[in-house]
Amino acid sequence: MPITVYNTLTRRKETFQPISAGRVHLYVCGPTVYDHAHIGHAKTYVAFDAIVRFLRYAGYQVRYVQNITDVGHILDSGEDRILKGAARERLEPMEVVERYTRSYFEDMDALGVQRPDISPRASAHIPEQIELTKRLIEKGHAYEVDGSVYFDVRSFPEYGKLSGRRLEELEDGARVAVRDDKRHPEDFALWKKAPPEHILRWPSPWGWGYPGWHIECSAMATKYLGETFDIHGGGVDNIFPHNECEIAQSEAAFGRPFANYWLLTGSLTLDGVKMSKSLGNVLTIKDALRRWRPEAIRFFILSGLYRSPIDFSDEAVDAALKGWERAIGPALAVRERLRAPGLPDGGAAEIAPALAEIKERFVAAMSDDFNTPIALSVLFDLARLTNQLLHAESPAGRGALEAVEALYRELAGQVLGLLPPADTAAGNAEREAALIRLLIEMRAEARARKDFAASDKIRDRLRAAGVILEDGKTGTTWKFG
Amino acid sequence: MPITVYNTLTRRKETFQPISAGRVHLYVCGPTVYDHAHIGHAKTYVAFDAIVRFLRYAGYQVRYVQNITDVGHILDSGEDRILKGAARERLEPMEVVERYTRSYFEDMDALGVQRPDISPRASAHIPEQIELTKRLIEKGHAYEVDGSVYFDVRSFPEYGKLSGRRLEELEDGARVAVRDDKRHPEDFALWKKAPPEHILRWPSPWGWGYPGWHIECSAMATKYLGETFDIHGGGVDNIFPHNECEIAQSEAAFGRPFANYWLLTGSLTLDGVKMSKSLGNVLTIKDALRRWRPEAIRFFILSGLYRSPIDFSDEAVDAALKGWERAIGPALAVRERLRAPGLPDGGAAEIAPALAEIKERFVAAMSDDFNTPIALSVLFDLARLTNQLLHAESPAGRGALEAVEALYRELAGQVLGLLPPADTAAGNAEREAALIRLLIEMRAEARARKDFAASDKIRDRLRAAGVILEDGKTGTTWKFG
Repeated sequence: MPITVYNTLTRRKETFQPISAGRVHLYVCGPTVYDHAHIGHAKTYVAFDAIVRFLRYAGYQVRYVQNITDVGHILDSGEDRILKGAARERLEPMEVVERYTRSYFEDMDALGVQRPDISPRASAHIPEQIELTKRLIEKGHAYEVDGSVYFDVRSFPEYGKLSGRRLEELEDGARVAVRDDKRHPEDFALWKKAPPEHILRWPSPWGWGYPGWHIECSAMATKYLGETFDIHGGGVDNIFPHNECEIAQSEAAFGRPFANYWLLTGSLTLDGVKMSKSLGNVLTIKDALRRWRPEAIRFFILSGLYRSPIDFSDEAVDAALKGWERAIGPALAVRERLRAPGLPDGGAAEIAPALAEIKERFVAAMSDDFNTPIALSVLFDLARLTNQLLHAESPAGRGALEAVEALYRELAGQVLGLLPPADTAAGNAEREAALIRLLIEMRAEARARKDFAASDKIRDRLRAAGVILEDGKTGTTWKFG
Repeated sequence: MPITVYNTLTRRKETFQPISAGRVHLYVCGPTVYDHAHIGHAKTYVAFDAIVRFLRYAGYQVRYVQNITDVGHILDSGEDRILKGAARERLEPMEVVERYTRSYFEDMDALGVQRPDISPRASAHIPEQIELTKRLIEKGHAYEVDGSVYFDVRSFPEYGKLSGRRLEELEDGARVAVRDDKRHPEDFALWKKAPPEHILRWPSPWGWGYPGWHIECSAMATKYLGETFDIHGGGVDNIFPHNECEIAQSEAAFGRPFANYWLLTGSLTLDGVKMSKSLGNVLTIKDALRRWRPEAIRFFILSGLYRSPIDFSDEAVDAALKGWERAIGPALAVRERLRAPGLPDGGAAEIAPALAEIKERFVAAMSDDFNTPIALSVLFDLARLTNQLLHAESPAGRGALEAVEALYRELAGQVLGLLPPADTAAGNAEREAALIRLLIEMRAEARARKDFAASDKIRDRLRAAGVILEDGKTGTTWKFG
């Protein structure tokens, strides 16, 4: 089945055609690692996780590159984000980078987001960024002023084609912000001169400095995916200036299209308001994970279209949790039923047509610009079918249950990442201790009524499960053996 | 208490004196990430983990830098390790690096090895390595030949001071291997010219190429720890040429000592034989972790002195597991006892002197060149004391048990990393399911004998613990609620 995608560059849905048959080269703008990631990051990267998982499920070999910005991301205040984080925590900049890169991947792992194949860091590609900047100067698209290098926006007439902004508008908007040595206010930095007190700096043909924020993505995408690649992704908030500048840099340097398809995720608000540090309304992924299980957060994000905006609220995620339980609960019940003894065989052939139809509708939904809301509605149909099977007059056969479980694993597990893994499911130590204490009580009661068969059974079965009881003066204690 | 360390540079034990009071700057040579880490890596990094943990316990603020070699590690065969791994797996070199860097940290996390504060990658410090090479040329310690740069060993008379090798010996040994454009066979590469088909290459003042293996450690140690820092660590197998070359490069460039103390770990053999890929006797950490719990492997490694060689064998690790159970088991029994109701109060004052004496001997052992074998023997004394307490005529008081538990947490947990964490201890899903099935049976039996008080109790207590029973036609099933 062909896959259609909404291409922000052309503003229409197109049939996806990769450059090399069967392969997808994908670049997604990654986080700036100066603080813990927030639920806005969760939206973007869970959405692309489902996209990558589906492309792989559809048979594509995907190379997924997502950068780590650890230098050059300058705030409107003129501060470098990493240095700001370092000053706040009294750490070396590279310790800040290390800490929050790790924190980011912890959060992504917890959310079931599969790792990119390559996670290149901006600071690890200084030579590549310098080379690209040199090339842009040679081709007349960039100029040096006093140790800094700027991209000459007027030299690239297509500037604005992704975001739809016209240069004239930009000039009006930018005029107030003139405060540096650029020829035109809308030009942007490829390399910035750094004073000695700026810790993050490197030697270059233009003296000591650091790369501008945008150049890293052009340099690293080209290095790992080629001068033209298939899909560029990211959050829509970065469409201007970041994505626009990437296109200008890359296409001016190499004289060919940068990415063929641009897929941008819609933004996330929290209780109707854009998150911002100054407003103090930032919800980190870690805090969200203290309140909800990761599958609920994934379910919430996937219940909207990747390119639509979404509003995060307690009620909405609580509702998503209920939705997840309704959609996935039957799969867990099937697993449990499959463990029970005495299950009749058969049933696979009878249920096969219904499952095939569900799978087809699911794949159709995902093939239509990765429409996860419709894919989830198909999962609800699977849940309904499963419940009928579980509560039928005549007990469902093993074959039918295994077929249902396999389809759940494919669609809800492999593609959407919503299924807790079966064998690696961790237990709960607290709950386990409560169960053991209850069994110890049952055993004491059995002894009290002189039912030694029962008390011995409890002791022996606990031992078989790896729990050893020890009777002592102060009662019975236990340990794992 | 002062800490003494065996300094390989001076070949004697010295009192450790940091450059800045209360701070330790430590660099340890990290892995080359072209394959899964093996138990030899486990020995080195578990040993330094205990060292860092103890230094922090002793009050030092430690900055621990451990590099990731992802470029420039050339085998004797002339092959680049990363490129070899990439060819083997048909991946981009950076995908190989990503995969095995992640694998390495997974293994280290599993072994309870705390992460370094900074894990700089060689490929992320090309400009720094080029700068250092330029500096060495300017100072007359290096020379360029046809796009490659070599360190002139004769220009640094102290070459060999760490490993004790004399230049004359080296000349004899090296003469056979002459096959490149070096002035003297024992000179070593700072920068190597790379042909276009060599994927890992960067522009430099000497043309396209890549850094030599040794220069990365000099460049990154200096960048993050200063021109002179406190401790340089690594495996003794790298003392020559790697560590020796680091000293030559850094001291020739900056004209001052590189590291004040050199701490090198002894090597590991497997069943008496050095591990090697060509012999096919490499045991990965992942394979070892499939056989033994991580604490057993740590216990095994720490049962030898960090700088002594150790032989890894099934019997030795099985014995270490038994040792671990003997040393740590009483701590787990104490935890369990503390959970039991009706514990008498008190007992802390009576046991305080014995615990203080144990702590003092433990700290003395670790302060004496991080003598973990003696520290473990002190843990056995703590285990003995704990067992006496647990099996005493009159039940031990809560105060005494809590004091024991706290000391275990400090010494066995915080410093040696041998204690499974108390509250985050994951349960075991398999075992939990067995316990629940047993309770379901007990409930069925209670009903059969019309003991509805007992059957209701089981259902209600399970519900309170988060397990919901559902009675159906085919028997009782359960789910977590």
